[in-house]
This record gives sequence, structure tokens and C-alpha cells, in this order.
Amino acid sequence: MPSMLSAHVSLPAATFQPPTILPIANADLERSLRARIDGKTKPLGALGRLEALALQIGLIQNRLSPMLAAPQLVVFAGDHGIAASGVSAFPQAVTGQMVANFLAGGAAINVFARQHGLALTVVDAGIITEPSPHTGLLSRRIAAGTRNFSEEPAMTLEQATQALTIGIEITGSLPGNAIGFGEMGIANSTSAAALVARLAGLPAASCVGRGTGVDDIGLVHKRSVVEQALLLHAEALDPLDALAAFGGFEIAMMAGAMLGAAASRRVLIIDGYICSAALLVAARLAPNLLDYCVFAHCSQEPGHRLLLAHLGVRPLLDLDLRLGEGTGAALAWPLLQSSLRMLDDMASFESAGVSTREA
Amino acid sequence: MPSMLSAHVSLPAATFQPPTILPIANADLERSLRARIDGKTKPLGALGRLEALALQIGLIQNRLSPMLAAPQLVVFAGDHGIAASGVSAFPQAVTGQMVANFLAGGAAINVFARQHGLALTVVDAGIITEPSPHTGLLSRRIAAGTRNFSEEPAMTLEQATQALTIGIEITGSLPGNAIGFGEMGIANSTSAAALVARLAGLPAASCVGRGTGVDDIGLVHKRSVVEQALLLHAEALDPLDALAAFGGFEIAMMAGAMLGAAASRRVLIIDGYICSAALLVAARLAPNLLDYCVFAHCSQEPGHRLLLAHLGVRPLLDLDLRLGEGTGAALAWPLLQSSLRMLDDMASFESAGVSTREA
Repeated sequence: MPSMLSAHVSLPAATFQPPTILPIANADLERSLRARIDGKTKPLGALGRLEALALQIGLIQNRLSPMLAAPQLVVFAGDHGIAASGVSAFPQAVTGQMVANFLAGGAAINVFARQHGLALTVVDAGIITEPSPHTGLLSRRIAAGTRNFSEEPAMTLEQATQALTIGIEITGSLPGNAIGFGEMGIANSTSAAALVARLAGLPAASCVGRGTGVDDIGLVHKRSVVEQALLLHAEALDPLDALAAFGGFEIAMMAGAMLGAAASRRVLIIDGYICSAALLVAARLAPNLLDYCVFAHCSQEPGHRLLLAHLGVRPLLDLDLRLGEGTGAALAWPLLQSSLRMLDDMASFESAGVSTREA
Repeated sequence: MPSMLSAHVSLPAATFQPPTILPIANADLERSLRARIDGKTKPLGALGRLEALALQIGLIQNRLSPMLAAPQLVVFAGDHGIAASGVSAFPQAVTGQMVANFLAGGAAINVFARQHGLALTVVDAGIITEPSPHTGLLSRRIAAGTRNFSEEPAMTLEQATQALTIGIEITGSLPGNAIGFGEMGIANSTSAAALVARLAGLPAASCVGRGTGVDDIGLVHKRSVVEQALLLHAEALDPLDALAAFGGFEIAMMAGAMLGAAASRRVLIIDGYICSAALLVAARLAPNLLDYCVFAHCSQEPGHRLLLAHLGVRPLLDLDLRLGEGTGAALAWPLLQSSLRMLDDMASFESAGVSTREA
């Protein structure tokens, strides 16, 4: 087993500098947005979380009339060495097969992205077998899968930093002002569980779920794999070290893409457990990141609910999804649009001649 | 005060015969639909409630390839005599003003119906002041508002039966195979609270909420109004009697429209508290009705959560909405479409060449 300590010492965390992410708070703009929302023909606050969403998007864009343009959905794919430890119900080949399915347009995320007019980009962050070139595919391979983190760190700190940096570049190359994040990687719920346990300080057992559907025995095994890995990588405490120890290339690249998206003041739509684990890493590197995030849904993976509570956020949907791919982000998209249509298209009490409250 | 007892005796509940609503259960079709869903390229059950939705819509339509066509949104409006008891934060004139807003296209429901391509029909079931004719308006006035149910029954049994029957006719006149229900009526959350307390057997205090936004003193007063009315109309125990005692014309007509929609095997999309109260009445008249209902959202009105639990159903959205108008139904609509797009457009494991589970 290679020495983790020496790896940690050779490349300190300081080598990755996250981009500057400004806080979105702006009391004047918030007051003006609130006045616009409250002037609409409805009781105060009656559109609930849609009102909060319109307010947040306005503050992110620093505009009284926010608008959503050229929305993107980016699916990051990578393979995981930990798959060799028997933590998934599906064989590792499925990562590459599903990427082929994304590129052919047949997966759930294709269906929902088409439904809602979201441009879909698939990123190969490090699948075992390199996919054939395709116009919808960005080849940004760090390596042919991570190493097995039950034996050694999943990646080097250089690889983690490289993936983060490439993620930032990917965001920079995309148009529009809103990005939904998705992922594909057999065994990546194991990677997410270890990251969440370590960085959110939650009990490992509660961070591990059935993923794509392991049975009871598989679940016990998966928990034990994560618990032992947390002991093995006991020194990997800061976000970059934890990312290198447990992460996937797709998780690291997605974390970088999130940082890049917030630095350019875009709206981030966070999907399920694995996306939220990537966000957890990224938000530890740049806490203002959370201001830019809309949490699309709460997954059926039990650790996700705990992680959302740890982050102090509430997702829009709760539909027992556990597919990943960005499907929850795509399904939540029309709610973001509705929130801005409320701002743009609804009449005000004044314009519609409707009486306001009594007293 | 007129004698309620004589009113009840003069027209027994048997005078309203609900249309025949068939159960949707079909074990063979359910197996076939389940096989189609399970063959899609995703882990078993990974699309959660979307899978259940596709299954339900298939069973409602009795088709292995269900489809949604010409979706309708119908907003029933009516005024309530109980408004004179000071139970609302808004003056009664707002019912008619908001109907004018609906017809001019400026309300929240217009905005969301346009966003999702839902045809909008507004029904005047009995507003105090008759609106001017308009192509988007169905004039089906029972009377110029109900009576004050803190003093006498809100309507006669003849009026309740008439409203139910007209509701069925309205559904029959509409195209398509899916209907979202909405309502407008100042003070109708008070009417709904009394109906829910009576027909679901829930404590009155827990059925009463702030509606459009009464303050703490207003809330205490509203509770007391409902509690006293429940005592006054202690004999109004069956659904038709309770509807006459506490109901609004818009609630009664909506209940009829729901019965008609299910009898013609359409998908019903149930909005918030007042819609669900109408459904409660209708489902007591024809229990199979519930099979046809998709519950769009859980409102911030606290009685709604209790009512949904009483019905044993789980809504799709939980966004702190409390606007009515059918806004929750409109916002949930894309999820119904997504569920069928999954069935129609997703690749199967076989067609995409993706490996199935190990073992």
C-alpha cells in the first residue's frame, strides 16, 4: 500500500485556488425584488417557494428582471476502483454503456432534457474504456478509472486538482446562465457516502444506501467497506485530501464545474446524492457557492436527506428518485421557469384593478 | 332561522345519483405496464414516483401506451355568505375582480397554464356580481353567492344537486383526457375547513388555517366561526347534506366535475385545500373516484396535509403554495408528462445494449 502521508505532503492543498465567488446578498435589490413579487395579484407569500426562487435568481443575476437563457445540463461520467470491492448491483461496464446510451439519446436524462429544452453535454472524466468520439461528448479523461480507495487513495492530489481545474474550464466553455449537474459512475454512491461521512461528519452507516439497488447483504458489506476506508484514510480531513482519498474523477470535475459556474454568477441546479457530495466538497473550498445553488430534489438514498439537512437547504422535489444522471435537476427546471414567469407575466394589484387586503 | 331539518327531509340525498365510476384495477395490464417500466435503462424503481404515475395513468386509460391529450384547467368561482362573518383578509369583491383578472390573462394560473399549454376555462358558479360575458367564461350561476352558513345552510339541497349535475355536464363538454381543477372564492377556505372537519372527522381547529392571510386574532375568530357552524349544522352528516350546509357553489360544481371526469376515465389533477375538500365530498359519493386522482401538491394551509393523510395519498409537490386557482395543478403538470415520456422515449436495456444487474 502506498504511503498516503507522503502523497499528502508532496502537494499541499494550497495548490488549488478556487475562483472568487461573490456573495449574492444585496439588501437594496432584495427589497426591490420583494416589492415586485408582493405587488402581484396574490396574497402575500402565497406562491411560497416559487417566490423564494425568483428572489434567489434575481440576487444571483444581480437584476430586478432576472431571466434564464440557454440552460445547460452537464453529465460527468467516471469509473471507480472501489467497484472491485463489490459495492454495486451493476457491473462496472454499465458506466460506459450508459454513456453510449446518453450519446444515443435513450436515457432518462435525454428524455427529460428534451422535454424541457436543456442542452445536454456528457463529459468523460475517466471511464475505464474510452468511448468513441461523439459531438455530444467532451473527452476530459484524468485516467481510466480511479484506484480502489479501500486499498489506496482513489486519486493523487495532482489528479484531484487537475479535475477541479478542468471542471472550471468546462463551465467557462458553456453558454447560458443556468447549469444542471448530473453524473454517471458505477459505485459512485460509495464514493459519495465516504465523502459525506468525512466532510459532513455524519455516521458512515447513515451515509450508505442501496445505490442502484444492492440487497440487504450488499448493504451491510457496502457499509463495512466505507467504514474501513474512513479508517484507512483517517488523515484525509480537508476537502481536497478527502476528494483525493474517496472521490471519483466525475465528482471532482463536477465540483470544479460548480465553482466555475458560481464564479460566473450562474444558477446551479443540484441533482441527487452524488451531485450534492460534489457540492459539499466545492462548498468547503468556497462557502459562498451555496448562494448559487437550487436543490432540485431529495433522493431516496437516505444519506441525501441528511446531507441536505447538514447544508441547511430544502430541495424542490421529493419524488423517491435515485437515478442520478441529472434527472432530478431536469425535472425541477420548469419550477425555475415558473418563478420568473410569475415576475414577468403576472398582473399587479394596480394593473389588474384588484383590491388589496382589508385593514 | 329556517328549519334545516325540514329542508333535509324535503329532498333526501337519494335525489343525486353520481355517475358510474369504474375501478381502474387490472392485474394483467398492471403487470404489462410494470414490465415496460422495468425494462427501461435505469435501476428497478429508480424513477420513484414517476413510475407510479405512469402506472396509474396507464390504468386510468386502460392502455399499455397511455397518452395525455388536450389537457384542461378549469377554475370554478363562487362567492360565500360566510365572508360576512369576517373570516377573510380580503374583501368579497376580490372574487369577481380575480375572475376578471383570469379572463384578462394576468393571474398566476394564466401564467402557469400558458407555460404548460393547459387550456383554461373559468366557470362562474355564483359570484355576487355577474361578470360580463367573455369567451373564456362559462356562466353557470346557481345564485349570487351562498348564504351565511353561520346562520343557515349555505345552499338548499336542490342547489347542491343542481351544482353537482352542472359540474358533470361541464366535464362532458370539455375535450381531452386530463383535467386540472382550481377555484376562486373569497372565504372558501372557511367552507372547506367545515366540510373537512365534518366529513373527515378531523378536529375543527386543525382544519382552519390563515387562508389568504388572516392574522392571529382573525385565525381565532375563523376557528370559532367554524366550530359554531359545525354545532349549528350538527345533523348535516352525509356528504350531500354537509355540502349544502357548508359548501360553496364552486365547491359543489367542482365536485360534480370531478365525478364526471372520472366517469369518462380522465386523469384528475387535484390542486390545494379547497379542491381537496370538493374531492372529499365527491369521493364520499363515489369512492372509486380516488383511483383517478393525481394530487398535485400539499398546500401551506395546515388542514390540507391532514386531509391528504386522511385520504391516504401523497402529493407530488410541497412548495408552501396557498394560492388556489389551480396553480399547484398547473405546476405539477410537467411531471405527468415526464412520466409518460419515460414510457415512450426511454431506451430499454435490450435496445440500448446495457447490462442488467449482476447475480
